Amino acid sequence: MYVVLVYDINKENNGQKRWNHIFKICKRYLSHIQNSVFEGDITKVQLVKLKQELDEYIDHELDSVIIFKSRQEKWLNKEFWGKEDDKASFFI
Amino acid sequence: MYVVLVYDINKENNGQKRWNHIFKICKRYLSHIQNSVFEGDITKVQLVKLKQELDEYIDHELDSVIIFKSRQEKWLNKEFWGKEDDKASFFI
Repeated sequence: MYVVLVYDINKENNGQKRWNHIFKICKRYLSHIQNSVFEGDITKVQLVKLKQELDEYIDHELDSVIIFKSRQEKWLNKEFWGKEDDKASFFI
Repeated sequence: MYVVLVYDINKENNGQKRWNHIFKICKRYLSHIQNSVFEGDITKVQLVKLKQELDEYIDHELDSVIIFKSRQEKWLNKEFWGKEDDKASFFI
């Protein structure tokens, strides 16, 4: 399935460290397309693993993660404006 | 059509002010679901208007906006983790 994952990590309670961990985990499963936005094709099993890994770092009181799931990417049409992070992210 | 709009506004060049403008414009057309994420049903005409309004504030060198479009929301399945901004956003 195709997913878009967006996260908002609060800066409190050592947030930058959580953000870095979450970024690295997402990067192993999905493509980085904007500061806190990832997308990509993923199997159900991989998605469960991704969520398990993220769960170790997400602070459920402070942070927010939304996963949009679609059976096929072709149902979604994407429009980019301004700078594109997917290129920049190769340097992170 | 159903859209998910995500933006990343750089702090440089008076970024907070741009962020506030962009937030307020999006709020008039869509529902706020996470810090820099909006979603909702929108017509083609409204989407053109929204983009025209945003274009006044977006810095194309520094900022990034992605709009995911789907013909029907039912194609998308959403999963929320942690805190939900749609509730909090009523207080902004």
